[in-house]
Amino acid sequence: LNQDSIITALKSIVVDGRVLTDDADLKYYGGDATKRFETDAMAIVFPCDIAQVQAIVLFANEHKLPLVPSGGRTGLSGGAVAMNKEVVVAFDLMNKIESFSSVDSAVSCQAGVVTEQLQKFAEENNLFYPVDFASSGSSQLGGNISTNAGGIKVIRYGLTRQWVMGLTVVTGKGDILELNGSLVKNATGYDLRQLFIGAEGTLGFVVAATMKLTSPPKDRAVMVLAVSSIEKTMELLSRFREKVELNAFEMFSERAMEIVTKQHELQRPFSASSPYYALLEFDLCREDTPELVLSLFEECMSEDLITDGVISQSSAQAESLWQLREFISESLASHRPYKNDISVAVSDIPKFMSEIENTIVKEYSEFEIVWFGHIGDGNLHLNILKPKNLDKETFIKNCELLSEKVYAVVQSFSGSISAEHGVGLIKKPYLHFSRSDAEIDYMKAIKQVFDPNNIMNPGKIFSLDD
Amino acid sequence: LNQDSIITALKSIVVDGRVLTDDADLKYYGGDATKRFETDAMAIVFPCDIAQVQAIVLFANEHKLPLVPSGGRTGLSGGAVAMNKEVVVAFDLMNKIESFSSVDSAVSCQAGVVTEQLQKFAEENNLFYPVDFASSGSSQLGGNISTNAGGIKVIRYGLTRQWVMGLTVVTGKGDILELNGSLVKNATGYDLRQLFIGAEGTLGFVVAATMKLTSPPKDRAVMVLAVSSIEKTMELLSRFREKVELNAFEMFSERAMEIVTKQHELQRPFSASSPYYALLEFDLCREDTPELVLSLFEECMSEDLITDGVISQSSAQAESLWQLREFISESLASHRPYKNDISVAVSDIPKFMSEIENTIVKEYSEFEIVWFGHIGDGNLHLNILKPKNLDKETFIKNCELLSEKVYAVVQSFSGSISAEHGVGLIKKPYLHFSRSDAEIDYMKAIKQVFDPNNIMNPGKIFSLDD
Repeated sequence: LNQDSIITALKSIVVDGRVLTDDADLKYYGGDATKRFETDAMAIVFPCDIAQVQAIVLFANEHKLPLVPSGGRTGLSGGAVAMNKEVVVAFDLMNKIESFSSVDSAVSCQAGVVTEQLQKFAEENNLFYPVDFASSGSSQLGGNISTNAGGIKVIRYGLTRQWVMGLTVVTGKGDILELNGSLVKNATGYDLRQLFIGAEGTLGFVVAATMKLTSPPKDRAVMVLAVSSIEKTMELLSRFREKVELNAFEMFSERAMEIVTKQHELQRPFSASSPYYALLEFDLCREDTPELVLSLFEECMSEDLITDGVISQSSAQAESLWQLREFISESLASHRPYKNDISVAVSDIPKFMSEIENTIVKEYSEFEIVWFGHIGDGNLHLNILKPKNLDKETFIKNCELLSEKVYAVVQSFSGSISAEHGVGLIKKPYLHFSRSDAEIDYMKAIKQVFDPNNIMNPGKIFSLDD
Repeated sequence: LNQDSIITALKSIVVDGRVLTDDADLKYYGGDATKRFETDAMAIVFPCDIAQVQAIVLFANEHKLPLVPSGGRTGLSGGAVAMNKEVVVAFDLMNKIESFSSVDSAVSCQAGVVTEQLQKFAEENNLFYPVDFASSGSSQLGGNISTNAGGIKVIRYGLTRQWVMGLTVVTGKGDILELNGSLVKNATGYDLRQLFIGAEGTLGFVVAATMKLTSPPKDRAVMVLAVSSIEKTMELLSRFREKVELNAFEMFSERAMEIVTKQHELQRPFSASSPYYALLEFDLCREDTPELVLSLFEECMSEDLITDGVISQSSAQAESLWQLREFISESLASHRPYKNDISVAVSDIPKFMSEIENTIVKEYSEFEIVWFGHIGDGNLHLNILKPKNLDKETFIKNCELLSEKVYAVVQSFSGSISAEHGVGLIKKPYLHFSRSDAEIDYMKAIKQVFDPNNIMNPGKIFSLDD
């Protein structure tokens, strides 16, 4: 089929007008937050329901037409980028919350429901959807599930995987699978639902999900502490974790503090600067928590584990302390950072960070490093800033060369080259640093089971012909 | 190869003497807690390490020799039964806790570590392994993982799946895969670890696991309430769940109370009998919890939701209240119950129980039903007692006929025919009531990816030639 016939056929599947082919639309819907790639989509198609998704997939199988899923386009690994005349299947019109059971604390959503929409729905029903991150205002549930999104409260609430009760998918073969429904317990063979979580749309499309909600947190307090070393930061984590219910334990470096406060005109919490800062959020579920925290704080001060600290006295204050951490990513944008989202076992962090720093200094001493991350779950965002005098292309090329060395260090710690951003196109060349050849072979074989014609987001995570 | 040559070869793989072929051993290690099957194992082999397991699997591939894994032999679905001259691979000698990191709250175990051993290890390190069930004194971790064991605290702590950080498996092809290590976050393609959890040894053998531990619970209290209907029991669940941190919410019927108190010479908590009882365990994490519980209790009494209740005043009392629930399964043994382990969405329980009861009464009015279960997560243990005047064979045959009708009801509620016991041999004929034909076909194809010679626990969950 030629391009015109394909577009005509797609228009007959979805309601007319829901297939876009304008250059601006192709560019907008054919890319994600990476912005690094030259996109080249053939068409953007907007199904309204599961039957239309299935019809698109069956049509695509017939004509060996590659499909790329598109959610909120907030991905950071190029997982939803169309570069080879793929048809982009955008879930923007499948954005309804379909049913809710308060007894089950379960809500059934179409794949295009926006994370924040789900969070608000939960709140309106006196419940809580705990997966939260900077892009939750635009990221869609289908995308969250397909990358097993994490975010800022993983230490307390886990990853997206933990909140998926049931999943409806359209496989690469065009089968509709309803996986697990609203069951808490179901020991009837392989849990196929788990395979689709984090599969980045390469096995099929997530079209609906039943998400579990939980009780809203009690009052919370936020603390920012000034720390002189990473070793001490890890010691803080252990001490606080033992005594109080931590919702989050984040870390950021002085350079991050400097950039975020300048860019966003935020007030520095301390007069003196410090190499690192830890941000803790904890639940005030026990009456004695404030007391406990205060005595821990004093203990840490007297033992020189921290040099200064501030604790929120109101939720507004808690909010503004969080901004110091949450605005970092955005504030770095003008520095054109090369982002790495890596993880190791929590206990390995100090040694790991030091080895990474040594590696970078040795190769490119002019590269400036900004560290921040969800250190409570071993997840570090390593951002390398572009030196002013270096052009963009050379910088990216050098960073890619450097990545080989950085990821070799990750591998030596049995760490992950992508903690929560997925693999997509950007991490694909480096997958072997985190997964063995045997694992990758099994992944490819599984891909062929669900998507024998290789039409589902082909070339993402791995290429079948590598 | 003939049998003697096979045994000689196996003896050369493991240390001599660690291959058993006596009839008593074949019978003991060739079966599980179901006792229903005529076992017929060829030999029992006890590997000491991963390399030996791999050697056994490679040898078995070469000679198309079927293997059956054996852990604590506490399974209730015939998942670890050898009936066709299989070689049983018993993990009893691989029972070491290999390493522990307090910073990561992570403990690496060989597959043969007994659940209770892990629980005690956690306790000694001021931590907690929360998956707990009646057979935790003998069940092994490899088996727990292979059936995704649940138990009595799922409502608070989830299933085994939630506590598996890393998994080492030997696949059916003989590859050793180290899946995820000690990472909290790892978004690098398909999470193969999840496939092996609940796969009942049909894709490969779980040989080691890194388990996550958590903080020990605070003081706890146990409450038993007398309730006149299931609808009211569910209302209790909602009310208590909203206000206090529930560790468990269990239900059992008057008949179960009668049998367990008689059999184990336990004291009835109430003078009057009641159709149902609810057992709640909650954490005293907030100082005001006892007060809250008391006011909830009074509210429920005044609204006639409950007719009586008792709350533990000491941990010894909590323990003995738990016996009323935990000893039920054992106390039923002399009644030769036909067990069903089924689940539906929590909100569906009242309607579901009533339809099941109607179905059974209609078919076999003389069958007596004993209900109990983890009702807080939708999991019911439906036990049908053998009428005294019916012989065992006829009873089982009738129960199997009845199962078709019971599971049809389960299917109409999109429920599970096996909530936490796995499929094994016993539930295999009924798998299609919970999983679609397409799902089963995908499962078979995945099996062939990991175990192309069909040597790993063949015929469990499904038969490839069905």
